[in-house]
Amino acid sequence: MTTRQQSTALCAPLEIEDFGVQPMEDASPPKWHLAHTTWFFETFLLKPFAKDYQCYHKHFEHLFNSYYNGVGTPFPRPRRGDLSRPTVKEVMAYRSYVEEHMLDLIDEAAHPRNAAVRNQQHENLSQAIYTRVVLGIHHEQQHQELLLTDLKYNFGHNPLFPPYCPLLRDATQDPPDTQIFQQYNGGMCRIGASPNAVDFCFDNEAPAHRVFVHPFALADRLVTNGEYLAFVEDGGYQRSELWLSEGWVKLLESQWQAPLYWTKQGDQWYEYRLDGLHPLRLELPVVHVSAFEALAYAAWRGMRLPTEFEWEVAAQQQDVQGNFMEAKFFHPQAAQVPGTCPDTSGERRSADRNNKPHQALDQLYGEVWQWTCSSYAPYPGYQPLPGTLGEYNGKFMSSQLVLRGASCATPATHARQTYRNFFYPPDRWQFSGIRLAQDV
Amino acid sequence: MTTRQQSTALCAPLEIEDFGVQPMEDASPPKWHLAHTTWFFETFLLKPFAKDYQCYHKHFEHLFNSYYNGVGTPFPRPRRGDLSRPTVKEVMAYRSYVEEHMLDLIDEAAHPRNAAVRNQQHENLSQAIYTRVVLGIHHEQQHQELLLTDLKYNFGHNPLFPPYCPLLRDATQDPPDTQIFQQYNGGMCRIGASPNAVDFCFDNEAPAHRVFVHPFALADRLVTNGEYLAFVEDGGYQRSELWLSEGWVKLLESQWQAPLYWTKQGDQWYEYRLDGLHPLRLELPVVHVSAFEALAYAAWRGMRLPTEFEWEVAAQQQDVQGNFMEAKFFHPQAAQVPGTCPDTSGERRSADRNNKPHQALDQLYGEVWQWTCSSYAPYPGYQPLPGTLGEYNGKFMSSQLVLRGASCATPATHARQTYRNFFYPPDRWQFSGIRLAQDV
Amino acid sequence: MTTRQQSTALCAPLEIEDFGVQPMEDASPPKWHLAHTTWFFETFLLKPFAKDYQCYHKHFEHLFNSYYNGVGTPFPRPRRGDLSRPTVKEVMAYRSYVEEHMLDLIDEAAHPRNAAVRNQQHENLSQAIYTRVVLGIHHEQQHQELLLTDLKYNFGHNPLFPPYCPLLRDATQDPPDTQIFQQYNGGMCRIGASPNAVDFCFDNEAPAHRVFVHPFALADRLVTNGEYLAFVEDGGYQRSELWLSEGWVKLLESQWQAPLYWTKQGDQWYEYRLDGLHPLRLELPVVHVSAFEALAYAAWRGMRLPTEFEWEVAAQQQDVQGNFMEAKFFHPQAAQVPGTCPDTSGERRSADRNNKPHQALDQLYGEVWQWTCSSYAPYPGYQPLPGTLGEYNGKFMSSQLVLRGASCATPATHARQTYRNFFYPPDRWQFSGIRLAQDV
Amino acid sequence: MTTRQQSTALCAPLEIEDFGVQPMEDASPPKWHLAHTTWFFETFLLKPFAKDYQCYHKHFEHLFNSYYNGVGTPFPRPRRGDLSRPTVKEVMAYRSYVEEHMLDLIDEAAHPRNAAVRNQQHENLSQAIYTRVVLGIHHEQQHQELLLTDLKYNFGHNPLFPPYCPLLRDATQDPPDTQIFQQYNGGMCRIGASPNAVDFCFDNEAPAHRVFVHPFALADRLVTNGEYLAFVEDGGYQRSELWLSEGWVKLLESQWQAPLYWTKQGDQWYEYRLDGLHPLRLELPVVHVSAFEALAYAAWRGMRLPTEFEWEVAAQQQDVQGNFMEAKFFHPQAAQVPGTCPDTSGERRSADRNNKPHQALDQLYGEVWQWTCSSYAPYPGYQPLPGTLGEYNGKFMSSQLVLRGASCATPATHARQTYRNFFYPPDRWQFSGIRLAQDV
Repeated sequence: MTTRQQSTALCAPLEIEDFGVQPMEDASPPKWHLAHTTWFFETFLLKPFAKDYQCYHKHFEHLFNSYYNGVGTPFPRPRRGDLSRPTVKEVMAYRSYVEEHMLDLIDEAAHPRNAAVRNQQHENLSQAIYTRVVLGIHHEQQHQELLLTDLKYNFGHNPLFPPYCPLLRDATQDPPDTQIFQQYNGGMCRIGASPNAVDFCFDNEAPAHRVFVHPFALADRLVTNGEYLAFVEDGGYQRSELWLSEGWVKLLESQWQAPLYWTKQGDQWYEYRLDGLHPLRLELPVVHVSAFEALAYAAWRGMRLPTEFEWEVAAQQQDVQGNFMEAKFFHPQAAQVPGTCPDTSGERRSADRNNKPHQALDQLYGEVWQWTCSSYAPYPGYQPLPGTLGEYNGKFMSSQLVLRGASCATPATHARQTYRNFFYPPDRWQFSGIRLAQDV
Repeated sequence: MTTRQQSTALCAPLEIEDFGVQPMEDASPPKWHLAHTTWFFETFLLKPFAKDYQCYHKHFEHLFNSYYNGVGTPFPRPRRGDLSRPTVKEVMAYRSYVEEHMLDLIDEAAHPRNAAVRNQQHENLSQAIYTRVVLGIHHEQQHQELLLTDLKYNFGHNPLFPPYCPLLRDATQDPPDTQIFQQYNGGMCRIGASPNAVDFCFDNEAPAHRVFVHPFALADRLVTNGEYLAFVEDGGYQRSELWLSEGWVKLLESQWQAPLYWTKQGDQWYEYRLDGLHPLRLELPVVHVSAFEALAYAAWRGMRLPTEFEWEVAAQQQDVQGNFMEAKFFHPQAAQVPGTCPDTSGERRSADRNNKPHQALDQLYGEVWQWTCSSYAPYPGYQPLPGTLGEYNGKFMSSQLVLRGASCATPATHARQTYRNFFYPPDRWQFSGIRLAQDV
Repeated sequence: MTTRQQSTALCAPLEIEDFGVQPMEDASPPKWHLAHTTWFFETFLLKPFAKDYQCYHKHFEHLFNSYYNGVGTPFPRPRRGDLSRPTVKEVMAYRSYVEEHMLDLIDEAAHPRNAAVRNQQHENLSQAIYTRVVLGIHHEQQHQELLLTDLKYNFGHNPLFPPYCPLLRDATQDPPDTQIFQQYNGGMCRIGASPNAVDFCFDNEAPAHRVFVHPFALADRLVTNGEYLAFVEDGGYQRSELWLSEGWVKLLESQWQAPLYWTKQGDQWYEYRLDGLHPLRLELPVVHVSAFEALAYAAWRGMRLPTEFEWEVAAQQQDVQGNFMEAKFFHPQAAQVPGTCPDTSGERRSADRNNKPHQALDQLYGEVWQWTCSSYAPYPGYQPLPGTLGEYNGKFMSSQLVLRGASCATPATHARQTYRNFFYPPDRWQFSGIRLAQDV
Repeated sequence: MTTRQQSTALCAPLEIEDFGVQPMEDASPPKWHLAHTTWFFETFLLKPFAKDYQCYHKHFEHLFNSYYNGVGTPFPRPRRGDLSRPTVKEVMAYRSYVEEHMLDLIDEAAHPRNAAVRNQQHENLSQAIYTRVVLGIHHEQQHQELLLTDLKYNFGHNPLFPPYCPLLRDATQDPPDTQIFQQYNGGMCRIGASPNAVDFCFDNEAPAHRVFVHPFALADRLVTNGEYLAFVEDGGYQRSELWLSEGWVKLLESQWQAPLYWTKQGDQWYEYRLDGLHPLRLELPVVHVSAFEALAYAAWRGMRLPTEFEWEVAAQQQDVQGNFMEAKFFHPQAAQVPGTCPDTSGERRSADRNNKPHQALDQLYGEVWQWTCSSYAPYPGYQPLPGTLGEYNGKFMSSQLVLRGASCATPATHARQTYRNFFYPPDRWQFSGIRLAQDV
């Protein structure tokens, strides 16, 4: 229930008015996120497993279904912002009702009142309930990040630029050192996860399988605003030869001039962050760029983006740590200035003889999602979840690219080495940034 | 200030969530209506006339400008629903601030502290202030009606169909008698209004001028749901020969099958009214039809819609009375059953020898706006208001049709004989209905 | 059959490739015009009246139906340019086949082989056939003008700017004198036509009826390119206050900077005419302006456009003469320099005491259609033709404006005082121009 | 020059009218293909290498540039069908002019008149010219296939369904045997091509590199119309669970019910082929399906599509042979009935111990392009051609899928093992079909 409380805690700074706004088709209102994650538990946990469960409201199944065609017709996505009713209060009541029944169900599964059912069948049922609960928690964590990105889209497009959180950084730091490219030998590598009883993973991360990876090098930190600004000022948004054809069309259509939340007033660039609108801080990682922009930037540098396999191979050397949602920064932080960073690379160095970097990569997790050049496709032998839950991931495997890592809006326990996030190449309202790669 | 209070009173049944929703491009959120009408007074009254007036908020000029290009760039209309900030509370504070300064200004105009200014110049200034105040009041009355129609669009498209007001009618009445067509001789008629110091009119109602009107006849009451249902059931929405070409294209595009708030469940038609979703009441006037539907219905009946001149000539015989906003029905009522209606026609009968009806027309005002077949065009000699206020009416004089009368959502003091309402032929979210006409 | 030959004669300068192009949705390919006018005779004349008539091709009814829903489903208008088959040769064969049967039918109607049928029934039939033939001829004349305007749209948007006819004017003339505004008293005027056995008119010109017209004045000639250029150079396309709201939106969307066929190369304006691309000739009438542009220009001059009634009242004083299609100029000519114009105004002066101008209006017919500010609406007592032919005019009576006069692309016998042409306010690919009006 | 003649030979059955039609945005008119392939030689061969070359026409650079931003602004793609000029004759003259200069240039390169230039510099120049000529030939071959697919789109959407070639098959054959799945061991495989002086390849096929491929099985023939019809009749187009999310949206939008050229009349399915509209032949391969349809079909069968690597590994065992453009069938042929097929598998069997099939795959080349599930992405170490020619392939590497093989509209010398064709998942106007794959 910690995750459930986390969702409502994230909404503490909001006014009632903020809960209903859907500022673009892809971004949902906070209220909708709160209700949909509840609907998910109701639909996939309580309805099939809770005995005599009474559905909270006959219309909610339709209203808060996101895209599961197997559960009736979803309410049209672009109209989510039109629902002034149910109110926030009513949605909170819906949350409470479902949580109460979840607790009952979990309790019953753990301690059946009827001792006679303490048998294998019960074991199986308990396992099924546990699986669904864990899936629902990870589902809710995804929506916590979306709630933040969607809210940022709302606030960042309101001429009043309201802050969501208090001012977090008031002094410019030194820019980080020049990027260093860590080399990896590649070779036959194990990629992906094997579902097991202990560690959760989504179906799209499985099965674990072997991939042959060519030698490669990855930048030891993310691209900064300052580095990206040099691209902008060099005419990066006017030079078609740097862009994919679809990217160039999108740029012209949407009149892109810079990353999503940058605005220029006179000669000064500003960036809207969740703590308000502030002059652009050059040392911070660039964030809210589309894959098209990431690819054009890499082309301008004469480099490329990593494949998702390269990223995962590099990440196998390192721990999962970083600036996550719980830190409440809600914005990526500057890379560690060498020497000030706690040196935990000692252990890492001996971890793998084949893929041993000279030094660890910084900012792997918890600042920005890192675009890869890998299409979001099924792994060899991929099997979607059975039934309607099979619509969770598999049906989106076209035209999208994989992002790796995790962002400052990702719950810490949601990040892992094998995690595959995915968005369309023009999308840029997520906390997405750039880590460069090179052939060796 | 009664009108100002009326606006907030209309919002009493709303939840905070309801204030922000913009369910389609043409319909604005209640909060926006409250702020825009305030902006109107601030921009056109306080800024030019109130000494040392401090603008309430530098961004509001942009945010709450509707379409006055002469006052900077308006905030994009389709995005009005995206503004969760300012909050309802902040908008109410804006209203109070502006009202306070309005009262000061009006007071000063009436009773100048400095006796020396009690001269002609002051008189002129007072007159100018008075004119703007009156214009602002009528402007706010227009937005009161829009607030209700826009809210109805929101609630009427929410699957929960929330009611705005308590249930008003619980018993079906008898259907009204067959329509009687009252004959009028027409001839040279005086149309329109002459602006004067006492009676307000919009610039588009002036100047008064002569029009030659052919003999005509008007139905003594509005078309009912029952009568319109016969058209629906006779295949009215499948027979292209009854429709204007543009209307037929719109019908196909939008898949019109019936008036806006009608829905069919099984064999039963339902209508969403501001008191909730209820079985269709056959004796009530049909409402929320577009001009295309009104014209197709008239063609099906072998009749036509009145011109705006015919309507005005007929209205010259009668008083302005009906079921207005203040009655709090918020839905058109059934026509009077003859005999139960207070007979005030005695006076009328002798009023005008040339255009004398046998009997008065019922439901002229205060139920539904009545589509005419007249294009919204300038009267001969039309002059828009000077300056930016000239954008109020004149610039919309293309492709629209005039509606006459007033509806159950119109403030009583806003209705008059010469009033010209105007909407596009496909529009149907207003309280618009049908009065039939015939040649004689 | 002269009109039929005229259609093919107009195509003499075309290459086979030119017959198939549909450069925008509203403009049809020449081949389609040739086939559709033939379809019209086949559908409305031969099928109902020619005994044992064999339809030429089963698919042509569908392919060459323009918009008559009563005759099956028309082939989608935007796809007319996709029909490489039937070929031009096949369409010409279709024309010949239909013409042959028309001649037989007309011959039979005039001289029945069976003497026994020379009775009243035959008279009626002959009259019906004659009526349809005349309607079909006027229909084909309309399409001759459209063929030229659509071809001009094609050639005028081809970067090669191919000429359709040889260069016609190679010397700039003097600009005409300042416009003089002729005054008319107005009053009760007869407007429209009474259908009779001798003079053809469309159903939308009838019935003749009385209209009360206020005193007015009309410019004695059309607005010139030079005069319009002054508007362009005064920022006419940047000043929203001069434009109707819909016009301003259209201007922004379509990035209008000048009339349709004007282009600027360096500092010089050029105009594409059917004799090629040439430097703008200031003394020629401005042509290919939308109603929005005409209205904005009039507003800039502090004047207005005439109503269609004013235009007709003025035209009642004058003969139908001008620069028509047969003159093969295919472009409007400069106004007569006073003194060089043959003075026929003597007779006119005494024609009507009530509406007597000091001097005749120049360029009334045969240069450009003149936008009026009158909406295209039914006259009082309007009756569409019975049956499917009723779709000819009536169903377009929404959102359009009336144009009066005739253009350099109109066949001479197609022009008349009571003719009502109609297009949408943003349309500008017709030969449409501006005659100014004023209140008196 | 054979290839150049081939292009015009393909147009022999066309009427002049057929050369100009662009029936949808992605399909270009035949005339445009003829001119653009000429433009390619003029721009990339003659202008840089032919001394004193005079450009044929100053406007053609703009008109016939497809998408090379590096060579000025291309003429808007959707308007290619609007160019009635230049005429077919003029385009043919353009072709002749360029061919003449090409021959001169090639002759000069081979036999320099000035003996003094027979040195290394000349060698280099000759090599560069040779490279460009070969590239231009392969480019023209691509456009020969597009010319056929675009023409088919035109004819197949004309209600007259004109045939392009004479009737080719008039007797139904037996359906082929059940599909057999040939197994391959995979492992470390060499993929792609190494550019060399002898064998041409596009930049996107290089560099050759190693890929680890899991064991797999491929169907020994293509999916037939009969097999696909079973999917259609089982509700394949109504079951969202079989489709990718984007595919389902596209299906609903475009109202897909069956492959592109299938139409149902009564109970009988018909298929438009380039030899006309005929009853659906069940034994022929299904063709003109999108990737979305191919994937849904595979899902319905419980199988999948091959990766491009799997396809290439299997193809490494076999010769490049099949039903190509030169056979003039212009439609895929039925699979060989076993026993009638010339057994050339003997040699193949011993070719590779690792990837040895029991039997060869039929229909690998020359019937239909086979959708793979591989995104079109750069191979490791991919380098686009230098300069503007780098726009040829690389900039399209987003959102597309690779197709392998070749079709009945592909010139025989254009097909090869490593060839990577690519289209968007919803595209279906190419000769694209389905070969199924399975995990082992």
